[in-house]
Amino acid sequence: MADRSGLFIAFEGGDGSGKSTHARRLAQWLTDQGYRVHLTFEPGDTEVGASLRQIVLHSPVNLDVRAEALLYAADKAQHVAEVVRPGLDAGEIIICDRYVDSTIAYQGAGRALSVDDITRLAWWSVSDLAPDLTVVMDVSVRQAFAGKTDLDRMESAGVDFHERVRHHFLDLAAADPRRYLVVAGRGPIDAATGTIRTAVSELIDQSDRRLVRV
Amino acid sequence: MADRSGLFIAFEGGDGSGKSTHARRLAQWLTDQGYRVHLTFEPGDTEVGASLRQIVLHSPVNLDVRAEALLYAADKAQHVAEVVRPGLDAGEIIICDRYVDSTIAYQGAGRALSVDDITRLAWWSVSDLAPDLTVVMDVSVRQAFAGKTDLDRMESAGVDFHERVRHHFLDLAAADPRRYLVVAGRGPIDAATGTIRTAVSELIDQSDRRLVRV
Repeated sequence: MADRSGLFIAFEGGDGSGKSTHARRLAQWLTDQGYRVHLTFEPGDTEVGASLRQIVLHSPVNLDVRAEALLYAADKAQHVAEVVRPGLDAGEIIICDRYVDSTIAYQGAGRALSVDDITRLAWWSVSDLAPDLTVVMDVSVRQAFAGKTDLDRMESAGVDFHERVRHHFLDLAAADPRRYLVVAGRGPIDAATGTIRTAVSELIDQSDRRLVRV
Repeated sequence: MADRSGLFIAFEGGDGSGKSTHARRLAQWLTDQGYRVHLTFEPGDTEVGASLRQIVLHSPVNLDVRAEALLYAADKAQHVAEVVRPGLDAGEIIICDRYVDSTIAYQGAGRALSVDDITRLAWWSVSDLAPDLTVVMDVSVRQAFAGKTDLDRMESAGVDFHERVRHHFLDLAAADPRRYLVVAGRGPIDAATGTIRTAVSELIDQSDRRLVRV
């Protein structure tokens, strides 16, 4: 883990889990303490990534499932090379809204490709650059879609898909508890914020990184 | 090999090897015999592939080497899914100007990534769909660039690179001689044409494919 000066924190979770809100809150809190913080996201937070996303979302033909996985992997490779790695080398705190685990959880839940293949491809694309801490915002599918979608009308295939996504996240966290923090995404927001801040403060205190301050 | 009705022939080789000329000649000759022939190429012979090629060639920022490899792999995945596989299922003869071996030879010669990684990625992208025959058009680097470039002024790094490309092709052919035909790319053109036609005729005679005729 001595391969970086900075600190790398990923936020993962399903849609509607509060992931992006808590990533923003943490970035603001750390900025207020004087750290140099870069809040970024996958997929798409580079110029190349934005172009790839257009191809995935607006391809005039059916995009092959492997081609799609490879485009998302290319997006990750470019994002790490252009944004994450230089930030870590410069001693920044990088907070990334979705990272490798989202790739595994969503593409794995899609079941078109094997989870092993997806996992290998995603980690290869980022040259095995792992976060120091991954915060998984966990909500049940019912909670996530409450108020947004008429869940009764959502086909059960959709519910099953999102349940599989959720369980991929939880399985990944369970396999490496030291590097994961699972937070209830739909409890009181300030409780979640407090839990995250405590974990990140401990991480900073215990680490030997050379974090820069502005 | 009973996974297809059609026949899949790839042409590989360096720039200036006569590869595209002989791919075209063979396509015309087989068409004249009444076969349904589809002459195609990598990279880029799909709408998605053309968009990806634009990104690779005209990216405003430095494209990460892994991102580039993944974009070429995405191009291959889409090309196989959209063009090659449907053609083979329909009993066509698919002739492809550059395929997996070009990926391995060029990216491998670039030395930024391991040949093993490139090989695994390229074959995964095409779901291990191998040609029935690969024709390697072989020329020395001096021959290939004769008349085109002032070779004395070409930096030796460029010559070395193209020599490595050439030897990747020859090594791949040597490892599986039954599926490869190495042809001297700068001998008399009709001799090369004859050699290729003989090999393809034998392949058609010996195969149990259900080739359609028009």
